Amino acid sequence: MKVVVLFSGGKDSALASILLEPFFDVELATFAFGPYDTDNAAKGAAEVLNLPHRTIVFDDEVLEEALGMLLSAGYPRDGLNHLHRRALEVLSQDAEFVADGTKREDRVPMMTPDGIRSLEDRKKVHYIRPLAGYGSKTINALASSYMDFETLNSEVRPASDFEVGLRMALEERYGQEAVARIFPAHHMHTRVIRRKRI
Amino acid sequence: MKVVVLFSGGKDSALASILLEPFFDVELATFAFGPYDTDNAAKGAAEVLNLPHRTIVFDDEVLEEALGMLLSAGYPRDGLNHLHRRALEVLSQDAEFVADGTKREDRVPMMTPDGIRSLEDRKKVHYIRPLAGYGSKTINALASSYMDFETLNSEVRPASDFEVGLRMALEERYGQEAVARIFPAHHMHTRVIRRKRI
Repeated sequence: MKVVVLFSGGKDSALASILLEPFFDVELATFAFGPYDTDNAAKGAAEVLNLPHRTIVFDDEVLEEALGMLLSAGYPRDGLNHLHRRALEVLSQDAEFVADGTKREDRVPMMTPDGIRSLEDRKKVHYIRPLAGYGSKTINALASSYMDFETLNSEVRPASDFEVGLRMALEERYGQEAVARIFPAHHMHTRVIRRKRI
Repeated sequence: MKVVVLFSGGKDSALASILLEPFFDVELATFAFGPYDTDNAAKGAAEVLNLPHRTIVFDDEVLEEALGMLLSAGYPRDGLNHLHRRALEVLSQDAEFVADGTKREDRVPMMTPDGIRSLEDRKKVHYIRPLAGYGSKTINALASSYMDFETLNSEVRPASDFEVGLRMALEERYGQEAVARIFPAHHMHTRVIRRKRI
């Protein structure tokens, strides 16, 4: 059975993949916006994990939809949730099982129970959140057993999550001031740099 | 790292154990009330799974607390949640990691977010719900790949979950009428009868 995991190159989606690996053929997938090659961090992390990886470029209108949500809300939540849902929908087109690295304490991005039911029914897909029943402390303990990872500020683009591409698009069109207004300062991301056990 | 899994002998707690097995030393634990040897189904299922198992007998007052809740509410929810929380507290006394087989769609028994935080902080324990991010359809697909199980009516005591002991105590003290008033009729339980892959 194959599962496609929405993968940023960070600790959480990497651990989700490791937890699925004994039971599924795991494939990693990272989303990017057309103009930006934000998938490099995830590509590198996938190599480190020794798992197959592909990059999927969102349709152009998806970036416009998400930017519209960011600008009208003034905060990133709705836009990030929108991208997460769209990404899972795209993955569901050619997979029986899709997964992500969202965990027990996560608030954004997060599928609602209704959203999950809708995705699974419309797309005939099984959606799995391997970390949904794990707290942050447990995840840190497990992740440290299986990987080395570094924690870096969003501004140096350490990971390939949706935030990186949204920040680049906002900066290009509206300047650094718009980025600073919408995204929190000093937001940290993790990046996997070594797998400790196979 | 050792994890103790709250185990009924049914499909869900068995699959939770199988999902943890590549990453932890898994030990299964089943709770019983003093007067009733309701742990036989779980013992047999643990043998089938080839995982170490122990039975823990609740302190006498725990049965009284749960029966009180059942009788005053007229439905089993509060009593089942109480037993679930007490069982996890007992397991947490001598384990760093504790787990159960509760899944995405489950409503009872279920720890609240506040209850989870309280358990983890007071007992210095990591509480894991391996199936929290899996829907019923996904669980059935995975469980069928790894186990044969049968589905039987509660009345024939197929599993070792809390309901079986509560039904026995209610019947002994208040008659079958009390059982029928509080518990739903035709409630089905699963029991693992064979492990398909190691």
